[in-house]
Amino acid sequence: MTRPKPNAREDYRVFRTMTTRWSDNDIYGHMNNVVHYLLFDTAIDRLLVDKGILSRAVRDTIFVVAETGCAYFAEMAYPDEVTAGVRVADLGSSSVRYEIGLFRNDENTASAQGHFVHVHVDAVSRRPMPLKPEHREVLEALRVHSV
Amino acid sequence: MTRPKPNAREDYRVFRTMTTRWSDNDIYGHMNNVVHYLLFDTAIDRLLVDKGILSRAVRDTIFVVAETGCAYFAEMAYPDEVTAGVRVADLGSSSVRYEIGLFRNDENTASAQGHFVHVHVDAVSRRPMPLKPEHREVLEALRVHSV
Amino acid sequence: MTRPKPNAREDYRVFRTMTTRWSDNDIYGHMNNVVHYLLFDTAIDRLLVDKGILSRAVRDTIFVVAETGCAYFAEMAYPDEVTAGVRVADLGSSSVRYEIGLFRNDENTASAQGHFVHVHVDAVSRRPMPLKPEHREVLEALRVHSV
Amino acid sequence: MTRPKPNAREDYRVFRTMTTRWSDNDIYGHMNNVVHYLLFDTAIDRLLVDKGILSRAVRDTIFVVAETGCAYFAEMAYPDEVTAGVRVADLGSSSVRYEIGLFRNDENTASAQGHFVHVHVDAVSRRPMPLKPEHREVLEALRVHSV
Repeated sequence: MTRPKPNAREDYRVFRTMTTRWSDNDIYGHMNNVVHYLLFDTAIDRLLVDKGILSRAVRDTIFVVAETGCAYFAEMAYPDEVTAGVRVADLGSSSVRYEIGLFRNDENTASAQGHFVHVHVDAVSRRPMPLKPEHREVLEALRVHSV
Repeated sequence: MTRPKPNAREDYRVFRTMTTRWSDNDIYGHMNNVVHYLLFDTAIDRLLVDKGILSRAVRDTIFVVAETGCAYFAEMAYPDEVTAGVRVADLGSSSVRYEIGLFRNDENTASAQGHFVHVHVDAVSRRPMPLKPEHREVLEALRVHSV
Repeated sequence: MTRPKPNAREDYRVFRTMTTRWSDNDIYGHMNNVVHYLLFDTAIDRLLVDKGILSRAVRDTIFVVAETGCAYFAEMAYPDEVTAGVRVADLGSSSVRYEIGLFRNDENTASAQGHFVHVHVDAVSRRPMPLKPEHREVLEALRVHSV
Repeated sequence: MTRPKPNAREDYRVFRTMTTRWSDNDIYGHMNNVVHYLLFDTAIDRLLVDKGILSRAVRDTIFVVAETGCAYFAEMAYPDEVTAGVRVADLGSSSVRYEIGLFRNDENTASAQGHFVHVHVDAVSRRPMPLKPEHREVLEALRVHSV
């Protein structure tokens, strides 16, 4: 079972800081492994709204989650503040793979990092729909090409 | 069924601002009624730690929750930021009643307000224990006497 | 600070059993005080859907939560199963006050009990709307008149 | 971006059925992608406790989560019941890789499936510790060798 190496902040393109909650800590006194995904969700949504890709109004197409994953390197715990760094790693015709690093307080090495694959679908039929060219352009600008 | 009137920020003594999460919104697109309690919990804990009443280390006595309640006046929703105002409303020999107002972004009228009753107990036997005099003094300073 | 006495199962009219989750336990190894409200929500919704008062389809009117509260008597913890007993305590022209008891595994004395006030509103304007006569009839049948 | 194929119930070794909660549904009316991990957590813990590998008492060694992941094939939603199937896919000297399938109500094709890597560590130093031989034996019996 090989493990990825933790990334640094400079490996990501956009950032968002979030507060943690008392209930995020589990019986071991650290942030439960599920909370990381709550933060991924929030960071990605925030990015999409801020960049004009996602609107909160009713809409014809939505993004559904096809795959997620997370590797945990170091414990975080409430009351830490957590900054998520996000980048685009892959752009398909109707899908996007985001990669996210979670940084504890002012640390520069990710405590956890993961991925999040969105598929752009018709809101009713749930059939994949091509990404709009203007959205693809925005996402392309957030792309980091792996070495 | 009579309803309390929403308080203003000036009705509270200490404040803490928290971020909301994507998953806080339910199917109606607003913050689910349960999330308010996650924020109460966090605001009270933060107050107790900042004031030196609660330590995160293992300890002989803990606070258990005896009663909570919330009245909802106006909808909040992710990505709102929420500021909790807290005051002490009642101080028993081993219990404290906190009152909390939740303020949406920069608003001055509470979107929701509630209470939270803590009982100071022995960590093992769960028997009530008198509040320590130095803690009582701190809590007394946060007290607001109702008119 | 007076406290209510814990109710028995016979004090409620309808019941629903729910499983707990690992993450429901907090750092003290018991079910966090917020989880009780997740169970209230679920029990009430289930009742309304089963009784034909609430449909999952898009609709003209919805129920919004005006007030909730809970008194905690005894600790519960994952992996307990929790049975919620529900009754109607008050029926206004457009509002309903439910009372809920939470019973741990096979116990007959409530570990916690609370209330939940729903207001029937127009889905768009959020203005209160009278309860429909056929729904009022169903809710009346779940009513328990306090002694 | 290749995708795994959904498994069937027969691909797993042990099963646990869980109820969903009202708040599990997000604004799209389906179970939010994070809830799957709450169910993974619970299913794995339940397995470990039932098999005598994990005790709820204070202990010298604990399991920490090193990696998780999930592929989503079909939507689930409250009030669905979800059955988790679990198998052991890999056994290292101090780590275990579990694979989990989530089955909606009586369906035989997984709506989602994922993995969960546990590392056995010293509770204080968080250093990896070899799995105990009697625990390894239990886990070996749950192992499914990939074709």
